[in-house]
Amino acid sequence: MTLPLLARYSDLLRYDRAHGLMLALDLRRYPRETAFVECTGVEAVVHAIEQGAVPGGPAMAYVAGYGLALAARAWRGRPSDTQRAAIIQAAERLRQVVTSDPRRIVEQSLARADAAILAGTDAEEAIADVVDGEVQRGDKVAERCGRNAAGLLDDGDRILTHGFAGAALVWMLYVAHIEQGRQILLYVTEARPGLEGARLTAHQALAVGVPVTLLTDSAPGFGFARGLFTVSIAGAVRIARDGSVAGPIGTYQCAVLARHHRVPFYVLAHAGPDLATPTGADIAIAEHDPAAVLALAGTRVAPEGAGAYAPACDVTPPELISAIITHRGIYRPERIAAAFSAPNDPGAGAVRRK
Amino acid sequence: MTLPLLARYSDLLRYDRAHGLMLALDLRRYPRETAFVECTGVEAVVHAIEQGAVPGGPAMAYVAGYGLALAARAWRGRPSDTQRAAIIQAAERLRQVVTSDPRRIVEQSLARADAAILAGTDAEEAIADVVDGEVQRGDKVAERCGRNAAGLLDDGDRILTHGFAGAALVWMLYVAHIEQGRQILLYVTEARPGLEGARLTAHQALAVGVPVTLLTDSAPGFGFARGLFTVSIAGAVRIARDGSVAGPIGTYQCAVLARHHRVPFYVLAHAGPDLATPTGADIAIAEHDPAAVLALAGTRVAPEGAGAYAPACDVTPPELISAIITHRGIYRPERIAAAFSAPNDPGAGAVRRK
Repeated sequence: MTLPLLARYSDLLRYDRAHGLMLALDLRRYPRETAFVECTGVEAVVHAIEQGAVPGGPAMAYVAGYGLALAARAWRGRPSDTQRAAIIQAAERLRQVVTSDPRRIVEQSLARADAAILAGTDAEEAIADVVDGEVQRGDKVAERCGRNAAGLLDDGDRILTHGFAGAALVWMLYVAHIEQGRQILLYVTEARPGLEGARLTAHQALAVGVPVTLLTDSAPGFGFARGLFTVSIAGAVRIARDGSVAGPIGTYQCAVLARHHRVPFYVLAHAGPDLATPTGADIAIAEHDPAAVLALAGTRVAPEGAGAYAPACDVTPPELISAIITHRGIYRPERIAAAFSAPNDPGAGAVRRK
Repeated sequence: MTLPLLARYSDLLRYDRAHGLMLALDLRRYPRETAFVECTGVEAVVHAIEQGAVPGGPAMAYVAGYGLALAARAWRGRPSDTQRAAIIQAAERLRQVVTSDPRRIVEQSLARADAAILAGTDAEEAIADVVDGEVQRGDKVAERCGRNAAGLLDDGDRILTHGFAGAALVWMLYVAHIEQGRQILLYVTEARPGLEGARLTAHQALAVGVPVTLLTDSAPGFGFARGLFTVSIAGAVRIARDGSVAGPIGTYQCAVLARHHRVPFYVLAHAGPDLATPTGADIAIAEHDPAAVLALAGTRVAPEGAGAYAPACDVTPPELISAIITHRGIYRPERIAAAFSAPNDPGAGAVRRK
């Protein structure tokens, strides 16, 4: 049983230094077909992101980083000020379309590119080194986070998840079912408008042999009422210092329903909190294009004149979260900032499932 | 400003006695196009229902009734036992596909057909008379229920509704906005898989000039958290004696979210409780064809091997319901059975908002 594709960022993304080419899995076609979009410049990267071809979450930040490498390549050999301005301009352009947080990668890339330009070495190589390193780090973080999550599961668990909770969820299923031989069932919401649950999560779970039952986004409540789920696990887009979690739209209502029915609600955090964001109220909420809600599979469904409220994310307050699962351990939400402020906290505040 | 089409059953359905023809609005095409399916026999009625051409709720029970009239016509002039057996057989066949409760209409139709056959008069006419009477009664019930609901609304209300709550909701919007001049806003969930909210509710609300904002089924929770809604109103499919309400799937989670956010949650009951059903647990829950969830707009989305949990309805317990709105008044859920057991209860147990 091999690991499914979405468990490893390094399987989804690649920067070809010989040809100045960024390759990323085309999510519009996956899993129907495993094809890669190829970008040779910043505008091609922007276009691929805008068209929904590029995976969200950390993968999108990596794509943005490789976009900077492409900019450096295009301006190679020019005066150092010109090179530097071109890379900064590319970073600005990419920030307009990237929904995940690319700051860490952009800042590191700019610093290393600066140093390379000053030293007369190649800025493209320097940036590609930074992003390659981040991709490798992201792979390790996702695996450890998923292993920690698998440790929370019991034999016979019936898990509710919402949309696609990322590489850590794939690892969790793989470790629990394949490595540890646990019998688990996965219930997944389809997650309109992108249908990541129906398309991605269902496919990855079946690929590791975990039985999957799909729900409309309207069905989790009744599923809880009928006792269908023993545990619920969602993915985080961003975590504030107070333990509030931004997740794909619908995460919040799953958390309210889980609490109402006394079922544990866990969050897969990947790399931990964003210490620059104090509270849930400080998290900016991106919006989907309303057209995605007013139409279905490209065909307009709602009448002309109807508006749409289409937040891409919502915010779940810490009091509704049983624990946040990270690569370093499992924490009560109110402990997450302290745990990640101390660089090598040996799991202080870590919790076990009741 | 004329009343939109879905406010009156008599605008949706018609039995043509001269030609032995039942006409019903084709919901697969409405509101894109106002076309009627024409049925000349029981199997055509069954087929129209199975294909989703016929409106749900009371309208589907009326359609079943007219189906019996078509059966009576087909066997006209045969021996009375043969006529009677054919009508009973038609009733059995229709019961297999009708999701709403046709008992009242079927029982009345059979009784009147029997009497007609014994008296040597026309059974088709007798049944058509029964169903025409029920359609007229249904129109009055929907209007009164909608007027009572409108009485609960305040100027500036921002109303959340789920899917299509039927003719009473259309009346509520018409009366509140057109007759009483109240400024109200309607938020409506799309309600996968049938998308009745996006297709029907949005269209009817705009037709009476009420601004409409569409939400995915994953968004009500965050809408409540952001204070978007001042009141929530859902439609009932069946109401048990204990005040439990079966509604289209997703109704229950809206009720849990409304309670969590201390927003009133009302149910439009149309004709009141089903006194033959003691509790919510006694309500049988029909299931959608799983294919409707595994596919989107006819195209398979979920991978082969994925299952689907696709209940058509859920059950909301009385403790989550602020009040049930009927044609006779507005009642606390625990009072609904008593109120409807006394035939002309003058509004005992009726409640006002807050």
